[in-house]
Amino acid sequence: MRNYKMKIAYDGTSYKGWQRLAGDENTIQNIIEVEISALMGYGVTIDGSGRTDAGVHARGQVANVKLSRIIEIEEFSSQLNQKLPEDIQITSMELVKNGFHSRLSATGKIYRYVIDTREKPQVFTRKYTYHFPEELDVTKMKQAAKYLLGTHDYSAFCDKKEEKSGVRTIYSIDMTQEKEKITIEYYGSGFLNHMVRILTGTLLEVGSGQKSVEDIKGIIESKVRANAGFTAPARGLSLEAVYYE
Amino acid sequence: MRNYKMKIAYDGTSYKGWQRLAGDENTIQNIIEVEISALMGYGVTIDGSGRTDAGVHARGQVANVKLSRIIEIEEFSSQLNQKLPEDIQITSMELVKNGFHSRLSATGKIYRYVIDTREKPQVFTRKYTYHFPEELDVTKMKQAAKYLLGTHDYSAFCDKKEEKSGVRTIYSIDMTQEKEKITIEYYGSGFLNHMVRILTGTLLEVGSGQKSVEDIKGIIESKVRANAGFTAPARGLSLEAVYYE
Repeated sequence: MRNYKMKIAYDGTSYKGWQRLAGDENTIQNIIEVEISALMGYGVTIDGSGRTDAGVHARGQVANVKLSRIIEIEEFSSQLNQKLPEDIQITSMELVKNGFHSRLSATGKIYRYVIDTREKPQVFTRKYTYHFPEELDVTKMKQAAKYLLGTHDYSAFCDKKEEKSGVRTIYSIDMTQEKEKITIEYYGSGFLNHMVRILTGTLLEVGSGQKSVEDIKGIIESKVRANAGFTAPARGLSLEAVYYE
Repeated sequence: MRNYKMKIAYDGTSYKGWQRLAGDENTIQNIIEVEISALMGYGVTIDGSGRTDAGVHARGQVANVKLSRIIEIEEFSSQLNQKLPEDIQITSMELVKNGFHSRLSATGKIYRYVIDTREKPQVFTRKYTYHFPEELDVTKMKQAAKYLLGTHDYSAFCDKKEEKSGVRTIYSIDMTQEKEKITIEYYGSGFLNHMVRILTGTLLEVGSGQKSVEDIKGIIESKVRANAGFTAPARGLSLEAVYYE
């Protein structure tokens, strides 16, 4: 078996998320598996670096696939792209060691969340930004973001506890403001279910004055979901990159 | 009567173009007229700076509307935007002289055409770019663009001759290349039906070697549509700005 690593971009607007679902074919994993299987002539499964929720986008999702024969990478990914819908794209493909697993081998991820605070959402980016037409105190949001950094049990920022441990490390949260557009980039070891969206909702509540900067510490320590902010919508979120050693 | 000038942005993907059509409500002009009429309580018509074809976008379309009473501009445009669909937006509104007419008073327009030459169209911009996966000689395209400048009868670059004269002036054609994305910006006194799209198709035929730089002069002089290049698709085109004295 040969193990291939694929980088994948998708506009998640029309899909039920990354993960294959029983009884629902409209997931990105499923669509890619179907097309690779058609090209190979037998059923193939792929492993993604992690789930993305329904409506979440990706510029740098990573998945690996084990194939029984050597493929000509350029030609194969070109054929695959021709078969995939225009909102899903294999942006690169390479042969990797058999031990490589896109989820288990991952050492870090970058997620980006984009907020549009204009009165009306910008026409050309509306599907990739969350429209939140509020006056935001970005300085306070940046201060709050600092309290979110480090290694903590982030259970307060998780909607469905599926894993044993809620401990993760957030290395950096970069916030940039360009006119009425605010971009928050989260770099961490990994993220719990809905974690980036709840972190964003919490920061937005700090920015709009519903929570204070000092609340953050207590929220983390409480490990109680209800103490954190709202779950910001999927459309503003994109998986930008997955890192490996 | 008070005359108001509106700047309008729209994602033209879902619409049958700007111009109101008998028997088809799905045009941008019609949708805006319906909402302004609802706010005013009587039937209102608006004048656009020009038609844009079905599927063409705008960041800077201009229209004017004459209203029987004084409105509070901020509040009115905000209410209007709340009623308009999310892919049509009034970006600014101002009171102008009664003699102002968005089409007749216009002295120039900028259209932008965006081409994606990657093997597969970029996922997040695919609706706003024309996917043309060819190796293009941009230097030759720039040379050809120079021959297109000036004041000419551009009838060769017109699909439906609706006006008496085909004479227009193109002040500049700026071409920029950023990786596999080519952006062409046309600044002219005005443009004939499909003119920007045919200019673009012609430049693309020069870039891909089907036409030579030297062909351009003869094409203009011939005034024969069949001599020019193909009509590039609507999705790559956007009306960026309309200028007035």
